[in-house]
Amino acid sequence: MSGRVIVAGLGPGAENLITPEVTAALADATDVVGYIPYVRRVAPRLGLTRHESDNRVELDRARHALELAQKGARVVVVSSGDSGVFAMASALFEALEAGPEAWRGLDIRVLPGITAMLAAAARAGAPLGHDFCAINLSDNLKPWSLIEKRLRLAVEADFAMAFYNPRSLARREGFDRVLKILRETCEPTRLILFARAVSTPEEALTIVPLTEARPEMADMRTVVIVGSSQTRQIPGTDLVYTPRGVSA
Amino acid sequence: MSGRVIVAGLGPGAENLITPEVTAALADATDVVGYIPYVRRVAPRLGLTRHESDNRVELDRARHALELAQKGARVVVVSSGDSGVFAMASALFEALEAGPEAWRGLDIRVLPGITAMLAAAARAGAPLGHDFCAINLSDNLKPWSLIEKRLRLAVEADFAMAFYNPRSLARREGFDRVLKILRETCEPTRLILFARAVSTPEEALTIVPLTEARPEMADMRTVVIVGSSQTRQIPGTDLVYTPRGVSA
Repeated sequence: MSGRVIVAGLGPGAENLITPEVTAALADATDVVGYIPYVRRVAPRLGLTRHESDNRVELDRARHALELAQKGARVVVVSSGDSGVFAMASALFEALEAGPEAWRGLDIRVLPGITAMLAAAARAGAPLGHDFCAINLSDNLKPWSLIEKRLRLAVEADFAMAFYNPRSLARREGFDRVLKILRETCEPTRLILFARAVSTPEEALTIVPLTEARPEMADMRTVVIVGSSQTRQIPGTDLVYTPRGVSA
Repeated sequence: MSGRVIVAGLGPGAENLITPEVTAALADATDVVGYIPYVRRVAPRLGLTRHESDNRVELDRARHALELAQKGARVVVVSSGDSGVFAMASALFEALEAGPEAWRGLDIRVLPGITAMLAAAARAGAPLGHDFCAINLSDNLKPWSLIEKRLRLAVEADFAMAFYNPRSLARREGFDRVLKILRETCEPTRLILFARAVSTPEEALTIVPLTEARPEMADMRTVVIVGSSQTRQIPGTDLVYTPRGVSA
């Protein structure tokens, strides 16, 4: 029997944001592989082995999934959100490319999911309703200079911006610098959304103008959305959106 | 009884990519409002009125939805993909902001969906696995000069790029210009994915280096993903991905 690997996004947290396609893949799996809190979102059942691993061992985890599949297992590698957006899909392909030739014959598929910025944007209104970009603020795998360059160019392009992994206990300085650069380059009324743990019981949304944004409003469970210059709040409501058009 | 408006994304086409949250909202709706082909994706049933409207009348459609809700209806405005990404959510908020004060008291919610670029990226591998941007190439609501400016800055930032609405019968020139600018600014081997109608029976994926990209590879049902300079194809496979890291 030949095995397979499915890389699947579980969405931001709520059960009702998991696609039926992913639910079906999990029901058919022999093995689930992933970071501890994501694997624990998959209910135990007879015939399913759950392999939990710690954060920052993505390549080991990917290799483990590929080895299991080579032995005939039907493996699902789980991420939160969408596995193709700052999650496990790229790690799996890095491991595949560096690994034994035989792995390339495995059946490998990626199933999309609701990524954090889309869940956060929907809760707030439609801040990503016009052109936008997504930047991972973690400098674990790229130099800070590249993050800063992209940030400055994104502001110049007047994209709305979604920031993933804005701040952790080990990385406090980066987001301080990001806010400083935004204060240098954007108008003080620029709207910023801090969306924490959207669709979970810990969900918290904060919308502030740039002048009131503080580093400690973000943590590892927060996605930050910075509006474009056109992003606005509808008076008398909490709704924030970016209009579809920009006049010539 | 007070009405409400839910703006919901139906995903790229397949039933099994519609979130249970959206399915539940549709089951509870009295009225569904949207562009003809999207409304037709919702099965008719007793107690549900389906309001189909043509393309490019988004503001009229949004006002209609708000009027129905004001009369007590439970309205779902449907988009394909995610309604917050180049779809109906921003149009609804534009109509809300310009409309009568009373509309601001309505219960209005946006439910996220699987947007085209995430479905396309998953099919190809993980081309959006590192920082990226999303640009609507239609110049119906913004000047071409702004599209060109954003494109050049996105290339300079070395984002992977997802292009929505790349080309239609009425807009043929824009995408020709986009390819021309990419040829001026990117290396000839840069990978481009043309993903048409992903998850529908008409799905077609084409992956080519920039030198082989042709304008007619895109149409209104295509999302185009241009890799970053780091995006690569795994030899011996069709898989395309962008590695997570960039070395300093």
